[in-house]
Amino acid sequence: MLRISRLAKSKLVDKLYSDICQKDNEAIRRTALARAITLVETKHPSKQKNAEELLDLLLKREKPEKRPFRIGLTGPPGAGKSTFIESFGQYLTNEKNLKVAVLAIDPSSSRTGGSLLGDKTRMELLSRNPNAYIRPSPSSGTLGGVAQTTFESCLLCEAAGYDVILVETVGVGQSEFKVADMVDLFCLIIPPAGGDELQGIKRGIIEVVDLVLVNKSDGDLVPAARRIQMEYLSALKYMPSNYPNGVWKPIVGRVSSKEGNGMAESWGLINKFFDKLNDHKLIDEKRRKQRINWMWHHVQERLLASTRSKDFVKNLEFKVENDLITPSRAANSILDKL
Amino acid sequence: MLRISRLAKSKLVDKLYSDICQKDNEAIRRTALARAITLVETKHPSKQKNAEELLDLLLKREKPEKRPFRIGLTGPPGAGKSTFIESFGQYLTNEKNLKVAVLAIDPSSSRTGGSLLGDKTRMELLSRNPNAYIRPSPSSGTLGGVAQTTFESCLLCEAAGYDVILVETVGVGQSEFKVADMVDLFCLIIPPAGGDELQGIKRGIIEVVDLVLVNKSDGDLVPAARRIQMEYLSALKYMPSNYPNGVWKPIVGRVSSKEGNGMAESWGLINKFFDKLNDHKLIDEKRRKQRINWMWHHVQERLLASTRSKDFVKNLEFKVENDLITPSRAANSILDKL
Repeated sequence: MLRISRLAKSKLVDKLYSDICQKDNEAIRRTALARAITLVETKHPSKQKNAEELLDLLLKREKPEKRPFRIGLTGPPGAGKSTFIESFGQYLTNEKNLKVAVLAIDPSSSRTGGSLLGDKTRMELLSRNPNAYIRPSPSSGTLGGVAQTTFESCLLCEAAGYDVILVETVGVGQSEFKVADMVDLFCLIIPPAGGDELQGIKRGIIEVVDLVLVNKSDGDLVPAARRIQMEYLSALKYMPSNYPNGVWKPIVGRVSSKEGNGMAESWGLINKFFDKLNDHKLIDEKRRKQRINWMWHHVQERLLASTRSKDFVKNLEFKVENDLITPSRAANSILDKL
Repeated sequence: MLRISRLAKSKLVDKLYSDICQKDNEAIRRTALARAITLVETKHPSKQKNAEELLDLLLKREKPEKRPFRIGLTGPPGAGKSTFIESFGQYLTNEKNLKVAVLAIDPSSSRTGGSLLGDKTRMELLSRNPNAYIRPSPSSGTLGGVAQTTFESCLLCEAAGYDVILVETVGVGQSEFKVADMVDLFCLIIPPAGGDELQGIKRGIIEVVDLVLVNKSDGDLVPAARRIQMEYLSALKYMPSNYPNGVWKPIVGRVSSKEGNGMAESWGLINKFFDKLNDHKLIDEKRRKQRINWMWHHVQERLLASTRSKDFVKNLEFKVENDLITPSRAANSILDKL
């Protein structure tokens, strides 16, 4: 009985694998991709095993010559991220004949319960575009968990033939930093407004961006967008480059997602980034490092999660908070008890 | 025999404790403080137990009404950190009648082997000042280890009656961030030079500073110092406040450590910071959070260190790097093997 069950599992995985990788039937491919992402998102132990079997198959397959671009997008609420993705996605599919996958990490979906509908509504054209695939984050689990499976979802989208993977995050918790550690290029989208409205940008996020796009640069807002562009340029001036020998320094551009302006220019900048980094084999290097980091992210998170869930931890935290025991001693107590 | 040894240990701890806390004999207090810091820095298990006993005693003692200030200092090489500490320390002891402890985290000391002498030389007046205590980091162990015991060294200095604890870091690895998480106020010291010379400032460090001091603002360098001050002011303008309701936003000042200018102003700013934060009970809150964070720092570091040291990890890292296994699967393998 167990053996049959194992066989059945392998069959499921093989079927998903071949359905995702085939090019003949679009509908089958999309359905398989959706099922596969759900599989990697699962917390069910035996399904997790299936997910790992599937990912193993993907890793062993022949890689396409042209590597898909992994692009992370973040920005404060009201920056117009969805409108940008809609406009940029339409440009890439229609003008550049590329296939675009959008992975949206939105932990609020667990509260509204309508993330899927929400995403489909806010990217109306793209959600009906046969060359685009939009996948919102699942409503289950912590953000950490969501962002973790997003890395694996990226791999699945690439196997399904998508040329550009856009990973969008609304920026709760440490999600931007996790996304920055799974993409090739990290892009910050900001509205043409300063001061209080920019408080939503997480501290430290400016340090990991490769590209800043000032959105809504249209009509009356053009002067404000120009001003913000200049302010970001001067703020970024003294930031050290993220890459060896300063191969790339962050660029600040302006776009109007509403009018579709700046899409070709943005795509040009993104290609310049990939060309420059590829010239120095830095995309390869970045991905190799990201994989290792990602493994340690997983290890750390799972180790700490299992530690934090222990009953005795709360008591020790209380004692440390109230100066009844030193942090080091409390840490040793925790390690001793594990 | 064992019982006698335990007794002896307790006696050692009691003696150190009373010697540190007494006010009558300065020489005995300094010697005891030095021995106690060495004790908390030790990696020897039975001595570590003694160190924890000592720290327990310190936690249980009556706290002074006026809480010592914990101030973190960082900056790129050549910013003049030592000169600043010398000048500022002299000001605090001579003009303000305060006792100042300097804890210097300098991992390079393990290479030069002359950190103690180095520190004493670079802070010539302060090292001979009876109201100042300078303690360089030990040359042993990793930086993480050094910074970890620095937190405990802070507590010892406070028990020994120091009013201001300056924790200096030269900024290798993640040391600044660790220091920022053990002090009340975090200060960045920079030279009056832009561009390449500022590349030494760690990415993200600007996000955790409460105070920036442009040093060497004297003679010909005053205009340059003014310019850098303005540039930092504009770079910091859009950073969200580190504190609830924007109670404090980073301030950028100019000092000349060589001429002793700006010391009173810096002390004024620091007092303003403490007053503002104390008004909202934010120093208390910060310290409570820091203790908990510190406990988890210890747990995480010790858990990861023991994991990274396992033989099977290297092989898994190699596999992940070369795309032979997914990071998630590798992480699970590691957890399974633990």
